[in-house]
Amino acid sequence: MGFQEALSRILGSLQPLEAEAVPVRCAAGRVLAEDVHAPIDLPPSDRAAVDGYALRHEDTLGAPVRLRLRGSVTAGEVPEGELAPGECVQITTGSVLPSGADAVALVERVRLEGEWVVLQAGVGRYEGVHRRGEEVRRGELVLPRGTRLTPRDVGVLSGMGVAELMVARSPRVGLIVTGKELQSPGEEMRPAGTYDANTGAIAGEAERLGCRVVFSTICGDSREEVEAAMGRALELADVVVATGGTGIGSLNLSIRMQKEFAQDVMPFLLEERGELLVYGVRSIPGKPLAFGLVDGKPVFALPGWPLSAVVTFHFYVKPALLRLMGVREQPREAAVLERGVEKERHLTKFAPVRLRRRERVVAEPLYLPGPPSAARAFRALAQADGIAVVPEGVERLEAGEVVEVELL
Amino acid sequence: MGFQEALSRILGSLQPLEAEAVPVRCAAGRVLAEDVHAPIDLPPSDRAAVDGYALRHEDTLGAPVRLRLRGSVTAGEVPEGELAPGECVQITTGSVLPSGADAVALVERVRLEGEWVVLQAGVGRYEGVHRRGEEVRRGELVLPRGTRLTPRDVGVLSGMGVAELMVARSPRVGLIVTGKELQSPGEEMRPAGTYDANTGAIAGEAERLGCRVVFSTICGDSREEVEAAMGRALELADVVVATGGTGIGSLNLSIRMQKEFAQDVMPFLLEERGELLVYGVRSIPGKPLAFGLVDGKPVFALPGWPLSAVVTFHFYVKPALLRLMGVREQPREAAVLERGVEKERHLTKFAPVRLRRRERVVAEPLYLPGPPSAARAFRALAQADGIAVVPEGVERLEAGEVVEVELL
Repeated sequence: MGFQEALSRILGSLQPLEAEAVPVRCAAGRVLAEDVHAPIDLPPSDRAAVDGYALRHEDTLGAPVRLRLRGSVTAGEVPEGELAPGECVQITTGSVLPSGADAVALVERVRLEGEWVVLQAGVGRYEGVHRRGEEVRRGELVLPRGTRLTPRDVGVLSGMGVAELMVARSPRVGLIVTGKELQSPGEEMRPAGTYDANTGAIAGEAERLGCRVVFSTICGDSREEVEAAMGRALELADVVVATGGTGIGSLNLSIRMQKEFAQDVMPFLLEERGELLVYGVRSIPGKPLAFGLVDGKPVFALPGWPLSAVVTFHFYVKPALLRLMGVREQPREAAVLERGVEKERHLTKFAPVRLRRRERVVAEPLYLPGPPSAARAFRALAQADGIAVVPEGVERLEAGEVVEVELL
Repeated sequence: MGFQEALSRILGSLQPLEAEAVPVRCAAGRVLAEDVHAPIDLPPSDRAAVDGYALRHEDTLGAPVRLRLRGSVTAGEVPEGELAPGECVQITTGSVLPSGADAVALVERVRLEGEWVVLQAGVGRYEGVHRRGEEVRRGELVLPRGTRLTPRDVGVLSGMGVAELMVARSPRVGLIVTGKELQSPGEEMRPAGTYDANTGAIAGEAERLGCRVVFSTICGDSREEVEAAMGRALELADVVVATGGTGIGSLNLSIRMQKEFAQDVMPFLLEERGELLVYGVRSIPGKPLAFGLVDGKPVFALPGWPLSAVVTFHFYVKPALLRLMGVREQPREAAVLERGVEKERHLTKFAPVRLRRRERVVAEPLYLPGPPSAARAFRALAQADGIAVVPEGVERLEAGEVVEVELL
């Protein structure tokens, strides 16, 4: 099936996780599970917007005028009594306006003469005043459900007095990296060994999205090993992501060959233990990708090459994790291709690019010539900051054409 | 002084913090404190780049040919013996090439006949082979000091067997939010109270850069309270960030006024207790900003309005924190202004914008009309995703002109 159909099947099988409460101070990076309406007006009352002198604007209509200085009010103080005509009060920014005052003369615009404040020019009504509810009205929708909260959002919510929020629970992710050749970094290298790059990369990507990695293992390719690892992962995690164990070279590889090579454990396990919803996608990388539900939980089997694993994570697993968190969809960025990109017409190609952002965003493709590019593009992992999508039905995009780019 | 001079003084007073070791798995988001050179070749030996049949390319020169199938090798196995002329070995992607073999025929390109593998076409030398050191050569510089490690970088380092890395220690940040009107979210609002937005916003921004917030307090504006808070913060933190307590309305406000309002505690404290290096900057926001060293540690006093505090954090404090971590400087993005922006010529203006990224990046200014904009732009905090820099010497930028944008 094509990329879009595979993605629809994956997303169609998922429901958002339940919500949980967190203190606002710890909410940055979390995803709102509720619409947040302002619980108060902001400012909560008329406040001075500048340092200066609170006054009745009518008293200044015949400027130059002088007003009697009656005292001062600073932020946090409740001004006493009512301002009488002809009076003014020294006031600092953010302070509550005394009753009767309806304007603040900027400190630089007045001259002090003993108990008198002299104004050369009139002050308009509400000039220098930050009016009640001017910024946010009580009850107004401030941030909708599905928003990934920035530190600034946390500031805004704090400033409205919101102490606790309902956010999506962080998905618990289990990682299974299969391949009997794989070794953990730090181990003495065996003659036919390969250091595992996938655990570090995929775990980091998942954590950056706000997931918790609760299980992670390297296991051999045998059915018994993979099945045992999947069982443990499903006990602990909401989502299982496996890499490797889907080693079909291409979609036209015969079933005989698959059995002969005996590497394609994951899809068979998914079919036997649960529901295999996706196996084989017309995308590159991603041809051998498998997805299914086991015990109702999503299980992904990604290709084993590090770059393929990371790229397919971004296009198939990331949208699923965001769905579990209820994140509103973000549009992709667009960029101008620096060099042409080619592919077979029936595939969707995901091409790592390095972006140069000036007022035009330019995407430099990082794929090296010669198949299989995934195997040869280990370092593109470190160099890429985006992945361009070259859609089905297109054979070639020329330099200067615009592509959609998924940011890394 | 101007923005650039203030920034130079700040950065010139700072040294990077010491480095610490972390396991590679925990290094995403951290900053490399060493150049990392590849400890091994990648791949570590000649490997099959595809599923297929390992052979001597010379044997295929007279194709069509048939080769005797001698056995198989899968990833992680060390192939036994030497491949004799006329022989081939079934091989899976990533497996070590048997001695004598120098090419791999793609599985789809051959036909099996009992013990024989039939090829219709020749296979070039090293075709289907992922050669030793082809991706990374041992000793090669892979990631330079000062790199903020992505999950992909962690993958690349793991894949080279790097188990531990030297990274910059995370700066410990102490936060002091001053203003006797301020209350923590969740408290019952007092009549002249204001909920504190700064702690949540600034703490979140600092944490996102990789800092640890080790101290945070709301305190009144009196000299005694601020001094006590600063003392505690300096005991625990590497950097102290205060907001509020620098309430001079403008640079031409007289010292008499400053004393009269008695709000400007921080700069006086910095001068008395340490070295005041910056006080008052020709930037908006940022006019009353103060910076100094106390006990050799950097102390920032930012304006108290939430938007001003966040914006000045990004332009003055963030570069300092990145310097402490030894992060290499990143160029700003550029964007095309959607509407014109005005300011006084002698100031640098930092204008919050919302970016629309298509192949052109368009910046929509979020500042509302009417001074003082900082006071009126609370919600711009949540809406902005960048801050445009309108430099000194410019009075107006028109719609369509290009601005530098600091990303939030």
